[in-house]
Amino acid sequence: MKHKIIIALLLLAAPAIAQVRKEIRFPDPPGYKVLKCDFHMHTVFSDGLVWPTVRVDEAWREGLDAIAITDHVEYRPHKEDVVGNHNRPYELAEGLARHRGILLVRGVEITRDTPPGHFNVLFTQDNQPLDIKDFYEVFERAAAQKTFIMWNHPGWQGPDRGRWGEEQTRLLEKRQLHAIEICNGEEYYGDAHRMAMERGLWLMGSSDIHEPAPTDGQKAAGHRTMTLVLAKEKSLPALREALDAGRTIVWYCDRLIGREPQLKAVFDACLRVESLHPLQAKTTYVKLTNQCDNDIELERSEPGQPRKITIPAQASVMVRLSGPDGQPADKVTYKVSNFLMGVDQPLIVEIAIPKPASQPAAAAAR
Amino acid sequence: MKHKIIIALLLLAAPAIAQVRKEIRFPDPPGYKVLKCDFHMHTVFSDGLVWPTVRVDEAWREGLDAIAITDHVEYRPHKEDVVGNHNRPYELAEGLARHRGILLVRGVEITRDTPPGHFNVLFTQDNQPLDIKDFYEVFERAAAQKTFIMWNHPGWQGPDRGRWGEEQTRLLEKRQLHAIEICNGEEYYGDAHRMAMERGLWLMGSSDIHEPAPTDGQKAAGHRTMTLVLAKEKSLPALREALDAGRTIVWYCDRLIGREPQLKAVFDACLRVESLHPLQAKTTYVKLTNQCDNDIELERSEPGQPRKITIPAQASVMVRLSGPDGQPADKVTYKVSNFLMGVDQPLIVEIAIPKPASQPAAAAAR
Amino acid sequence: MKHKIIIALLLLAAPAIAQVRKEIRFPDPPGYKVLKCDFHMHTVFSDGLVWPTVRVDEAWREGLDAIAITDHVEYRPHKEDVVGNHNRPYELAEGLARHRGILLVRGVEITRDTPPGHFNVLFTQDNQPLDIKDFYEVFERAAAQKTFIMWNHPGWQGPDRGRWGEEQTRLLEKRQLHAIEICNGEEYYGDAHRMAMERGLWLMGSSDIHEPAPTDGQKAAGHRTMTLVLAKEKSLPALREALDAGRTIVWYCDRLIGREPQLKAVFDACLRVESLHPLQAKTTYVKLTNQCDNDIELERSEPGQPRKITIPAQASVMVRLSGPDGQPADKVTYKVSNFLMGVDQPLIVEIAIPKPASQPAAAAAR
Amino acid sequence: MKHKIIIALLLLAAPAIAQVRKEIRFPDPPGYKVLKCDFHMHTVFSDGLVWPTVRVDEAWREGLDAIAITDHVEYRPHKEDVVGNHNRPYELAEGLARHRGILLVRGVEITRDTPPGHFNVLFTQDNQPLDIKDFYEVFERAAAQKTFIMWNHPGWQGPDRGRWGEEQTRLLEKRQLHAIEICNGEEYYGDAHRMAMERGLWLMGSSDIHEPAPTDGQKAAGHRTMTLVLAKEKSLPALREALDAGRTIVWYCDRLIGREPQLKAVFDACLRVESLHPLQAKTTYVKLTNQCDNDIELERSEPGQPRKITIPAQASVMVRLSGPDGQPADKVTYKVSNFLMGVDQPLIVEIAIPKPASQPAAAAAR
Repeated sequence: MKHKIIIALLLLAAPAIAQVRKEIRFPDPPGYKVLKCDFHMHTVFSDGLVWPTVRVDEAWREGLDAIAITDHVEYRPHKEDVVGNHNRPYELAEGLARHRGILLVRGVEITRDTPPGHFNVLFTQDNQPLDIKDFYEVFERAAAQKTFIMWNHPGWQGPDRGRWGEEQTRLLEKRQLHAIEICNGEEYYGDAHRMAMERGLWLMGSSDIHEPAPTDGQKAAGHRTMTLVLAKEKSLPALREALDAGRTIVWYCDRLIGREPQLKAVFDACLRVESLHPLQAKTTYVKLTNQCDNDIELERSEPGQPRKITIPAQASVMVRLSGPDGQPADKVTYKVSNFLMGVDQPLIVEIAIPKPASQPAAAAAR
Repeated sequence: MKHKIIIALLLLAAPAIAQVRKEIRFPDPPGYKVLKCDFHMHTVFSDGLVWPTVRVDEAWREGLDAIAITDHVEYRPHKEDVVGNHNRPYELAEGLARHRGILLVRGVEITRDTPPGHFNVLFTQDNQPLDIKDFYEVFERAAAQKTFIMWNHPGWQGPDRGRWGEEQTRLLEKRQLHAIEICNGEEYYGDAHRMAMERGLWLMGSSDIHEPAPTDGQKAAGHRTMTLVLAKEKSLPALREALDAGRTIVWYCDRLIGREPQLKAVFDACLRVESLHPLQAKTTYVKLTNQCDNDIELERSEPGQPRKITIPAQASVMVRLSGPDGQPADKVTYKVSNFLMGVDQPLIVEIAIPKPASQPAAAAAR
Repeated sequence: MKHKIIIALLLLAAPAIAQVRKEIRFPDPPGYKVLKCDFHMHTVFSDGLVWPTVRVDEAWREGLDAIAITDHVEYRPHKEDVVGNHNRPYELAEGLARHRGILLVRGVEITRDTPPGHFNVLFTQDNQPLDIKDFYEVFERAAAQKTFIMWNHPGWQGPDRGRWGEEQTRLLEKRQLHAIEICNGEEYYGDAHRMAMERGLWLMGSSDIHEPAPTDGQKAAGHRTMTLVLAKEKSLPALREALDAGRTIVWYCDRLIGREPQLKAVFDACLRVESLHPLQAKTTYVKLTNQCDNDIELERSEPGQPRKITIPAQASVMVRLSGPDGQPADKVTYKVSNFLMGVDQPLIVEIAIPKPASQPAAAAAR
Repeated sequence: MKHKIIIALLLLAAPAIAQVRKEIRFPDPPGYKVLKCDFHMHTVFSDGLVWPTVRVDEAWREGLDAIAITDHVEYRPHKEDVVGNHNRPYELAEGLARHRGILLVRGVEITRDTPPGHFNVLFTQDNQPLDIKDFYEVFERAAAQKTFIMWNHPGWQGPDRGRWGEEQTRLLEKRQLHAIEICNGEEYYGDAHRMAMERGLWLMGSSDIHEPAPTDGQKAAGHRTMTLVLAKEKSLPALREALDAGRTIVWYCDRLIGREPQLKAVFDACLRVESLHPLQAKTTYVKLTNQCDNDIELERSEPGQPRKITIPAQASVMVRLSGPDGQPADKVTYKVSNFLMGVDQPLIVEIAIPKPASQPAAAAAR
């Protein structure tokens, strides 16, 4: 009898399988695929509020390509009711992830007092050996598993507690620290961003989601905080290669934060420029089209007009451009206010203006 | 050290407390409050995918007033990892529910092969005694706790398995069956609706939600399937009194399904009629305003124009009305196509047309 | 044959008549109706781009109660193609407005160089006599028609050109100036606001719309800039009485700008406060519900928590309140940051905390 | 003084120039650009309600590439106020269209009693000579201008009046009729569709818009009824060549209606198929991605599962496919229910299933 019940209940759950994936569109720069990744999230196995498979379902629906479930080793408030070891979240989610084509990275969150703070260990082989008290020994064991290690949310308890400490120095020396989470959910840590740039650590952003993924109406920005990884293909080894090489861009509150080469590559893939027929002589009008799902905000970095341009996601705007001398220009230089190479340091781009087509658009065809 | 971590993590979770509740607006008919209720949902303690407190959070956000968490007694696919008895979901959610002002009804789902099927037992004192094998003994024990018992989703495995059986007859004779869930998630069971009307059982609708509450983009209708209960006030005793008296309306896929007195009371509270200045002599124009969050669909049940009128939620439409003889009318009769008193039996309403105000609206004021 | 064509085309246009009106919800304070008004808009008869009836259609759809079409007397760039005198826009729109129950105020925009600027003359009997060159004579003639006169968009060409001049002084002395448009479309003029408060002129806001009403995606704010008028009923004489008495609130970019009595009356009608069961002893939790279509932004004006509260439109939030001493409070004082009594001068409100209901919400009912 | 006013008012209107264009995304099939076209619309110069430039603004905002303003020659209800000849709408809109890169086709609507009905003459050189009474002479003169002629909305006054008549036969014999408007606004004419297919006339769809373009909330479908033209480039001569060759697809209420080669080309450009790792042996799972802005509706035309698949616009779904024998398949055949080659005749497509990648997606990378 029980057997029949189980089958029936599985059937009832079937509609969930048909759920829709909303694709996130960032055109791929030459040679790379833009993987949408979130490597920090929780389930009922630590202080999260959902079952591990829910994280895969959410990733599918929201257009993510790769995730890691990173439950706390040391903090499990539901442990009276939820038992099972530190590998269980991965084991429970693995089949669904493979099936959906979501890359699932095994990981865990090392949760110590702040400072030194919390650390995500990604690409583990086995999470159980990391459940020990000694701080440095955990990282030795993690390193032995050839993992990728990120310092989580420095500054979430205030800037004082997010300072670079001797622990960080020692981990870095031993190459047991590779990245810093400069954006976590709705928070951005400028100090952490600065540290990452100064010390050559890679930039990461994640949701650190505990509850079910917020519905559209609840989100601060229109998207989840995540890491865009420029990988050579969509596979776990290619993802790992890209992380080791630091080809990451943090997507946070409609901003892209990364290093110049990656930001430039994505910007070039997103923007299309066409000349428009001028209303008067000696004016330059262009149609700027944004082919990605994030607005592009431009601010003039030299004399000339206009001072600011916003190109909404998947839309075009028409702009009258003038050179620094007020004359028509064949190229103009702008800051991309929401593509950041460093703290308060926007990407700078030179936009070439193509010649307008000679065919007058509104002339009658014969 | 652990203690500090716990405090810190609680602080991190704080923003969740500020979450917004979107109110569902059905104007209260005289003497009643329209309570928005969902008495069928699951958590990780049976085959659901969220922690019990999530159900309270969702209820708050979606504007619900009362819920019951009704995990299966007999079907617990996560039991290898999730331990704890049948009262745990209630115990874990109780404090948050009280705090949020959500009425939390203790309950459980008795899950037998179909037929006879699944039954929700609501207003239990203790769920543990219901974990026994004998079918009728469960209901005896439930009745001893003065509970309210609903037959769940008859027909979800096909009409054949949802037929009224001897078990139902016997339970009804012993007054151990009070209601039928005629709508469950995206499904409506016409046969069950007919049975409920014929045998005097109350009408219920619920989400039977297992996953996190769907985001806006995922919903079949614009709202959760639920039961609107016309209670004398918002309290557990008043809710129970209203359920015992059968003052329920099922809200399902933009339709209201109930008994005539309740449907009529809600309809009258929602619709406002104003006369408009006619464009020509001998015409009757009215402005119809819908003050609730569900569209109102009218269909003429006698000769005359118009044949159909849709008044969207929280909006008005202008309509030219004519009587059965094509002349202006002082009252007209319509079917409310999406307010159902029985299977394919819409509510019938008579709409009185007020006299237009004598003041011509566009005359200059002096 | 032509006659048949005309009838056929009228039938084709019929669906437009069924268009939906989205109601704007501001609960009425005792004794008043909140009329949603826009007294500044243009058509093809001056430099607008739509036919006069379009303004009535838009008003219906957007939930407005009263409008004035105020084409420029002196600026008619389409006059080569569009002929007809200054009363034509009113005459063409009047029938439709009366029919839809939209109060249509006859008016016109006097368009002089800046300074002194542009002025809307509202409640005219005949616009033709105002088409003369002498500046003061226009106002004499306007006054003879017992009109209501508003100084339009001071500051739209920069603060310098929006200064109070001798013309304004003279008009005010002769009681030929009654109001100032402090908000026009997406612009707010702080200087004009200050002038209005100092000199006892009424506050007005309008769209000054030239193009078709923007679609939702194009709007800066979620609503049209308009004037909320607290009138004793919805009629032209009552509207005029309310304007003469200055019972206006400007609704601009999700802010309400007015005088204290009107702001207070609307605020009290919008906010509902309920006590919630506390999570711990000595804490005060309340549910704050916003019953209007504009967010309410609160900022603490005395010691105590929380410092800021946002209650979204038609939604509720849960808040833990503490008195100035950190103890539970039975009343708290807040500034309403987006209800402005003067430039940078928010309305101040005292919110009384009701006693919580004694019935514990989550207890089982027997 | 007037001069200053004019400059000032032009400045005031400036923000309109920055308006955003929402691109419509149908990926271009090899060798073609998908031009989004609407060749039927009205202004105040006939019975429309907007100034001609508004049609260009709307086209820009809604992502159109080419339009024709086609005011009625014989029906001008505003002529008491709006004077000017039949070329004025084109002349007034031409500069803005050229500037915005919108291809503006000169045209006019010949408006006779029904039958024979209304006809749009497109690509005219001069509209004035077409203002004469004799029916056949109008078409002689139109043909002399080498125009493209379309029979408008057959059936808008009922199927009887939309029958093919001797006038149509005679025009077709003289090659003075090239296309039929089978969709007009919210209407679709099955009879006209059949006639077009039988007699070799090209398929057209248009808005026939009279009012301002509807806001999002007012639209029946999510898009304007229009004609997609597969042109070799975006220019007037290329547009004309494509029309003469009949490479048109009508986009109407989320359906594409055209001839097989064009529908097939667009379908192939829109759909992307990827294999997913199977949950069990002998199953085939694929991810289907829809890269256009219209949902794709598939219905199985042979035995096998699933019977129906909906792939929402710009989204993906996961589907378990089986061949006709219930076994895994390497290709499957579906009808595309909303891509129509004829009345009730959906496009039929064969979808090839690629081999799944060998790399297991969730394996740990080393």
